[in-house]
Amino acid sequence: MTKRVSVLGCGSWGTAIVKAVADNVVSSDEFYSKVYWYVRDEEYEDRSLTSWINQDHTNPIYLPKLKLPMNIIASSEIRKVVENADILMVAYPPCYIIRLVNHVKEFIKENAYFVSFCKGLILCPEENRIRLVSDLIREQTGKRCLVVIGATTALEVVGEQFTEATIGSKSLECGREVKRLLQTDYMKLVITQDDVGVELCGSLKNVVAIAAGICDGLQLGDNTKAAVIRIGFWEVSELMNELFPDRGTNYLTIEQSCGIAELFMCMSHKLDDISDIGDLDLLNISVGRRLSNNDTNRPSIRSITDKIPYRTFVDGAEYAKQIYNILADRRRTGHFPLFVAVHRICQNEIKPQELIACLQSHPIHA
Amino acid sequence: MTKRVSVLGCGSWGTAIVKAVADNVVSSDEFYSKVYWYVRDEEYEDRSLTSWINQDHTNPIYLPKLKLPMNIIASSEIRKVVENADILMVAYPPCYIIRLVNHVKEFIKENAYFVSFCKGLILCPEENRIRLVSDLIREQTGKRCLVVIGATTALEVVGEQFTEATIGSKSLECGREVKRLLQTDYMKLVITQDDVGVELCGSLKNVVAIAAGICDGLQLGDNTKAAVIRIGFWEVSELMNELFPDRGTNYLTIEQSCGIAELFMCMSHKLDDISDIGDLDLLNISVGRRLSNNDTNRPSIRSITDKIPYRTFVDGAEYAKQIYNILADRRRTGHFPLFVAVHRICQNEIKPQELIACLQSHPIHA
Repeated sequence: MTKRVSVLGCGSWGTAIVKAVADNVVSSDEFYSKVYWYVRDEEYEDRSLTSWINQDHTNPIYLPKLKLPMNIIASSEIRKVVENADILMVAYPPCYIIRLVNHVKEFIKENAYFVSFCKGLILCPEENRIRLVSDLIREQTGKRCLVVIGATTALEVVGEQFTEATIGSKSLECGREVKRLLQTDYMKLVITQDDVGVELCGSLKNVVAIAAGICDGLQLGDNTKAAVIRIGFWEVSELMNELFPDRGTNYLTIEQSCGIAELFMCMSHKLDDISDIGDLDLLNISVGRRLSNNDTNRPSIRSITDKIPYRTFVDGAEYAKQIYNILADRRRTGHFPLFVAVHRICQNEIKPQELIACLQSHPIHA
Repeated sequence: MTKRVSVLGCGSWGTAIVKAVADNVVSSDEFYSKVYWYVRDEEYEDRSLTSWINQDHTNPIYLPKLKLPMNIIASSEIRKVVENADILMVAYPPCYIIRLVNHVKEFIKENAYFVSFCKGLILCPEENRIRLVSDLIREQTGKRCLVVIGATTALEVVGEQFTEATIGSKSLECGREVKRLLQTDYMKLVITQDDVGVELCGSLKNVVAIAAGICDGLQLGDNTKAAVIRIGFWEVSELMNELFPDRGTNYLTIEQSCGIAELFMCMSHKLDDISDIGDLDLLNISVGRRLSNNDTNRPSIRSITDKIPYRTFVDGAEYAKQIYNILADRRRTGHFPLFVAVHRICQNEIKPQELIACLQSHPIHA
């Protein structure tokens, strides 16, 4: 059976994905040679976005310089895009996912499955828990859901700069199918069956990035910053099992692109504003720096994130808070001193200067 | 039995170690309250180094600003320092180790063991193999040898900045004893039984650091640099078993301070000269940058390393060469494209610009 692929989401990351898939399916025996792309019903210079994409083969709003492949069919009728698809690739901010899947679930093909490119977690403060985007998709639709997460700023991917990402898939067969759809000369994929770990790494590393930024702001030494980041990754590994036990999470997952490579990317990035940043995750390290580089007039986390557009994405502090509440409920805060310290610093309960003191009796060194 | 500790090596790292141990044993029931320190028979301002240490409690040559603990006894009589010791801590450059152990082996106590802080490998081009410093110590003396490696620039350790390191020890009992000797408020240790992996990580990451420097010099994107480093670490993990099979090496070892934290430290370091660098490993990233940032007049690896004092320590290119020769002999170069590419770039066989093309059919993405 020739499978059809649809992509949902027309931001820069969705655009990068649809381009890679379209390049791969155009002369494929395995997949239908056209890719359907759901884009919002919006206008640019008196023409609809679909018309720009289908006639001019550009996305003038999100990635104006990119020439899109001819075999992409854009549509703002979501039903049409979804009902024929065997593989549904979703690149939405997590906060819009519930509405999306509730809207489309009644017209998904029986054997279709999802691939989530959504970096981020769904926080449920009222139930004091964290949900994975992929779990929400699975529960709402009854379909399989793979995840793809990695050190992948969209602007560099569409520029065809060498990039890696991690596919998390319990089914190796689906994982390999998605790899055939996405892998190009410039974008390389590795499959792991620890789908839960892949999704958590991509989000929880934002808390570690804030800690790294605090080290920068306080001008701590290189030994100290390296130790803080490493301890942070250990806590991420431990949290994978703490938050989602019996789901087969694996310590080795942090060695994938979704783990350490994401933070290497953060650390390489020089800019402290959002111009030219495709991946807003990078701003978490900057939040840490701003929190700690001015002791006499210390800004609040609110005043820092409010200055940043799209602040939903600068989410390390929000993750730290929700995780703190979960751990406090379970009397498990003692096992995660770094996550607790980042939360308390972000909430102005302790000073950034107290970060290291919080790590001095860390269970990793017991 | 109250055990006695001796430290051999009076450079900045040896000084940091003797200080940490002296602070810990001074009021210990378990260890003799004095630490013996073998220092070279050299003079400073017309007085011997031992006299500066024993009377003035300073090491004016290597760390003049540091006040040393009073319970350190320096001596330039190596026999005296070695023959009473139960635990022998060695912080020497690897190239001096053979002569050292051959000299001392006849007067070591029967149940004594070594702790090697020597970062680096012993290259044996004539036999086309690599030896571990700890293996050499074991073979020459018949004694046990632990290793301690981590993201530990000596200047920051003596400045009591928060630092981590990894103890590699097959014996957990000895590992815990060494941890009790070294761990302080500011220096934290984690024990792993993969002693071979610990020692290899600390050295082989220098090859990955050159690759990271090449990415910097070529101004490649952040996705690319993150991918290159991650792939490099995967090759380090694979090399652990390739070079030392059946020695119990473990992929998780690269998550310790001896692995990723070492490279986080490299990447955080801003300086491109050796002033204020305690750990000369940091220069490997700088070698990569210099190799690749000037295409019209490309410098040779020799001309770069010759400009750096103590060039024995800027050893990434030498490791890459020896490993290439071993892999070529085994027809295994195809499994390690990054190590092979770094070697070829350092030897001017290919241009730095070819690094990414070399990674495009990497076995990790098969």
